[in-house]
Amino acid sequence: MAKKKIIVQAAITGAIHTPTMTPYLPVGVEGIARNAIDAANAGASILHIHTRKENGEPSSDVGLTRQILSKIKGASDVIIGITTGGAIGMSVKERLAPISELQPEIASCNSGSMNFVLSELSKNLENPKYDWEKPFLEGTYGKVFLNTFEDLEYCINIMNENGTKPEFEIFDVGMINNLAYFLKKGIIKKPMYLQFVLGVLGGIPLTIQNVMFLIETAKKQLGDDIMFSMIAGGRRNFRYETLSAICGGNVRVGLEDSIYLNPAGKLAESNAQQVEKIIDILHKLDFEVATPDEAREMLQLKGKNNTNF
Amino acid sequence: MAKKKIIVQAAITGAIHTPTMTPYLPVGVEGIARNAIDAANAGASILHIHTRKENGEPSSDVGLTRQILSKIKGASDVIIGITTGGAIGMSVKERLAPISELQPEIASCNSGSMNFVLSELSKNLENPKYDWEKPFLEGTYGKVFLNTFEDLEYCINIMNENGTKPEFEIFDVGMINNLAYFLKKGIIKKPMYLQFVLGVLGGIPLTIQNVMFLIETAKKQLGDDIMFSMIAGGRRNFRYETLSAICGGNVRVGLEDSIYLNPAGKLAESNAQQVEKIIDILHKLDFEVATPDEAREMLQLKGKNNTNF
Amino acid sequence: MAKKKIIVQAAITGAIHTPTMTPYLPVGVEGIARNAIDAANAGASILHIHTRKENGEPSSDVGLTRQILSKIKGASDVIIGITTGGAIGMSVKERLAPISELQPEIASCNSGSMNFVLSELSKNLENPKYDWEKPFLEGTYGKVFLNTFEDLEYCINIMNENGTKPEFEIFDVGMINNLAYFLKKGIIKKPMYLQFVLGVLGGIPLTIQNVMFLIETAKKQLGDDIMFSMIAGGRRNFRYETLSAICGGNVRVGLEDSIYLNPAGKLAESNAQQVEKIIDILHKLDFEVATPDEAREMLQLKGKNNTNF
Amino acid sequence: MAKKKIIVQAAITGAIHTPTMTPYLPVGVEGIARNAIDAANAGASILHIHTRKENGEPSSDVGLTRQILSKIKGASDVIIGITTGGAIGMSVKERLAPISELQPEIASCNSGSMNFVLSELSKNLENPKYDWEKPFLEGTYGKVFLNTFEDLEYCINIMNENGTKPEFEIFDVGMINNLAYFLKKGIIKKPMYLQFVLGVLGGIPLTIQNVMFLIETAKKQLGDDIMFSMIAGGRRNFRYETLSAICGGNVRVGLEDSIYLNPAGKLAESNAQQVEKIIDILHKLDFEVATPDEAREMLQLKGKNNTNF
Repeated sequence: MAKKKIIVQAAITGAIHTPTMTPYLPVGVEGIARNAIDAANAGASILHIHTRKENGEPSSDVGLTRQILSKIKGASDVIIGITTGGAIGMSVKERLAPISELQPEIASCNSGSMNFVLSELSKNLENPKYDWEKPFLEGTYGKVFLNTFEDLEYCINIMNENGTKPEFEIFDVGMINNLAYFLKKGIIKKPMYLQFVLGVLGGIPLTIQNVMFLIETAKKQLGDDIMFSMIAGGRRNFRYETLSAICGGNVRVGLEDSIYLNPAGKLAESNAQQVEKIIDILHKLDFEVATPDEAREMLQLKGKNNTNF
Repeated sequence: MAKKKIIVQAAITGAIHTPTMTPYLPVGVEGIARNAIDAANAGASILHIHTRKENGEPSSDVGLTRQILSKIKGASDVIIGITTGGAIGMSVKERLAPISELQPEIASCNSGSMNFVLSELSKNLENPKYDWEKPFLEGTYGKVFLNTFEDLEYCINIMNENGTKPEFEIFDVGMINNLAYFLKKGIIKKPMYLQFVLGVLGGIPLTIQNVMFLIETAKKQLGDDIMFSMIAGGRRNFRYETLSAICGGNVRVGLEDSIYLNPAGKLAESNAQQVEKIIDILHKLDFEVATPDEAREMLQLKGKNNTNF
Repeated sequence: MAKKKIIVQAAITGAIHTPTMTPYLPVGVEGIARNAIDAANAGASILHIHTRKENGEPSSDVGLTRQILSKIKGASDVIIGITTGGAIGMSVKERLAPISELQPEIASCNSGSMNFVLSELSKNLENPKYDWEKPFLEGTYGKVFLNTFEDLEYCINIMNENGTKPEFEIFDVGMINNLAYFLKKGIIKKPMYLQFVLGVLGGIPLTIQNVMFLIETAKKQLGDDIMFSMIAGGRRNFRYETLSAICGGNVRVGLEDSIYLNPAGKLAESNAQQVEKIIDILHKLDFEVATPDEAREMLQLKGKNNTNF
Repeated sequence: MAKKKIIVQAAITGAIHTPTMTPYLPVGVEGIARNAIDAANAGASILHIHTRKENGEPSSDVGLTRQILSKIKGASDVIIGITTGGAIGMSVKERLAPISELQPEIASCNSGSMNFVLSELSKNLENPKYDWEKPFLEGTYGKVFLNTFEDLEYCINIMNENGTKPEFEIFDVGMINNLAYFLKKGIIKKPMYLQFVLGVLGGIPLTIQNVMFLIETAKKQLGDDIMFSMIAGGRRNFRYETLSAICGGNVRVGLEDSIYLNPAGKLAESNAQQVEKIIDILHKLDFEVATPDEAREMLQLKGKNNTNF
């Protein structure tokens, strides 16, 4: 009997948290690359990379991203994925530019539109370290995370053209149906890798019932052969990721999703620390963790040497 | 023991179907008003009104809307609600202008953002009667139904100021949480009236499991005292509305939601015909239908005489 | 596209209600046969027959049962099914004797053991018409409905030998798994016909959530090709049966399950009256009712002429 | 904010597994007591004790049980619970005799009747060590686990009289309703401690969906203030117990439930080994384990000194 291994993904820095929230948030090319390499060495199968300037502000600069990716590639065989979320106001073509230029093995691909409100996070920022932080968070109250069907089709096609596996981010039940639409249209290729994202204000809340409902719905609509993982922000991150593994899914940790190490609110000091912790839990539960090459085989990725960075 | 009565709403013409799909779609001031009055006479407790020009094109002209509402008010004591969905490209202030001007007893209030794709409907329109139909439907493939949190807050506040009861349209699970946010913020007043909308491409699909999940989730997040109804487009409309009643909810029919009279695809010839049919079903199941005044009491509306049309 | 028709079953008199509860409960050979024939003429596809003496007391006398069945067979082409529940204290061989002797087209087949408590019904019997009523109901507080796995295997085998289709009565979730056991063992033949029984004290309660959970579980464990119906005792019987039809199932009414005609507690005056009511509801919802011969084809029954009565 | 701690229960030997299945099954007074004390020292909050003779055969001898309990009590402050399941053929009075005589702090209390089939376990016993093993297991195919409502009422009353907390074993959904009946009747005292038992042939199968459904149903029917734990037999025991903790419940391990240490089928060499493993997992997930005295407070037990052994 083949034994299913667990893919451990580390989302290094994201574009949600800000430097004032935690001194451990990786910023700048060097900081992000070093944190990422440490996470890979700690056992992550896949890294998920966002780019930030030295002051921590999220950046869509492809040149900076290329520098980060090259440094990681030079130091590790880990699978390197990137975001296509871009920044508010960017066109979908601008957001997808890194795919065509860098041709990574995998990248996130949003599955629909929704409100994506971070302004509540701003309330705890009493003395923000940088000027950009509060306006960045509060601005989300008046904005929508835009991904029209035209955009989605464009994203999937660009990824197909560049041999980049889409990791579909699902923020609510209807987005599963959006993917069913494009699966039926023939542009999504199996195997499908789904990333359920719960707990964003505007999307489906983070509850055990909601996790179960998303998994069941996805199997019904997209087939029992889906592979999935789960993003569960906040202090109970490790418990939810353990739930994902128990339910037959994979796991994702990292400072993008949670800056904490435990429910008591102790700050995680690095991505590697979170990777070590989740792998430790998985091992205690007798799960095996997929190496990058095993994850490549499970996800049918093109391989490290076919990227353009 | 007080007996709960069922509120029957008729959504007269909406902004989704086009004249080529059915010759019975009410258009223009006279057509819409006449169809609406007939639906009221057939027993509807509430009417939901959109405005269309003589060629069937959706319109946001407050003057036209006022004419329709006045005609209905003059002929019936039915509760008259209006849409605040507006048209693509309109600002939220433009969309809410009719509330301030007409001060209706009730109006729809969207609860979040999502894709709202009608382009599949266009594929069956071989010889469209009007030039606007195909571009109108196909254009939705590249657009998003935008309702930022700022917009939602504005909507609720304007309705509160004008004594208009918001009927919250919920297109996916996360939108229930959006309402929980504003309930906690103190700007939503009880009793809450929810309208679950299933089956729009971009939102949660129309299945029995999804209906049940929305109802359960809403009770958990917003309280057991919510009142709800359900929009279920398509040929099985009457079966889903019956399900809503059996589950403790209210019902909504009308040519906005479904142009059919039965699963075989027979076209409904009027809103009144659909109202008669659902009331007949409800009576067979021993439900009682709320009169407009009984519905006013259930929803705590301000009364017909406090509107400004 | 083939259209699925609804099988309407009428359970004529059962062994739960007693004469004091309603003057309309059919008793004795003549009373039961006449009521059954009327229900068939009203449009029932299948009848489910229990035998009672003239004083209403449940009886396991095969001779009496044969008389009832012969009378119905002589007057109607309806499918005639019988119970194998027997009476407390009977061995499974005694309970199955009618199958071997009468060889009906279909018969109920219990799917497990449970408490089956009717004593609460006794509390409303102030002046019981017959001496047997109160002890009969109250005695259930100290008894168990016994169906060992040995018994279940025996039941299924006897039915297979006599060409009698088992209609599996399922009183709780685990019983679905019991059937999965015998399906895997190869003695249950497809198509399977399930009768979910909710609301018996000792089994799963009657709620909409429980109905949905039983249907979903049965599809997962026994296959999507199951056919099912539902027994929903009490005043809301017609609403639950309508739910069953909407969920893709069939319906069962009859004085065995509910002595009422509506939620207000009006007594049904005959089985035919309940059959007419549910058929009327189904027609309003555009369902078609299966004739006995159509139901025979759906369930793959052996035909009226192959019975031994 | 008070932090909820997890109660860790160890079920030392039970009456399901037989010596041929594992050489590590505790048998006899000395073997059971020693294994139990080790489990307590490993950190268990509660022990659940069955009695077996030296040849491993389950025994209902109160004298033997008293010896086991005394030895444990002399060596540890752990909470000591016993079974009331008894053996096939015993009357409920015989099964409850140990409660009156020993007056333990807690004891299992069955919540209904069902088939309880162990015969499948017999198929792997090629060379049974003892003569009693195969007949014991195979005999269950023809028997029912009998607990009439009269029995249940008797059990609860006897426990109330002796200050013994009932730990309600729930093998299927309907049993929750049985408890609701006795809660309403006023003989069950809060707080209620539920033990969900999944995976017994005859009861509800062990799946994640079923676990979730039992928890949700119990909260709806018995109140949000229930405390619960879960018995999950087999190789994935530790994953299911982790799920229970994540869902807000407590955990139970022990050789009664599973003879394994991991999904690969490595045999556990002692109860203590399983206790250590689950506590290690719980600590990795930042849960705290309740000491016996903390568990006493949570469950409102009478204390070690008020037992009669």
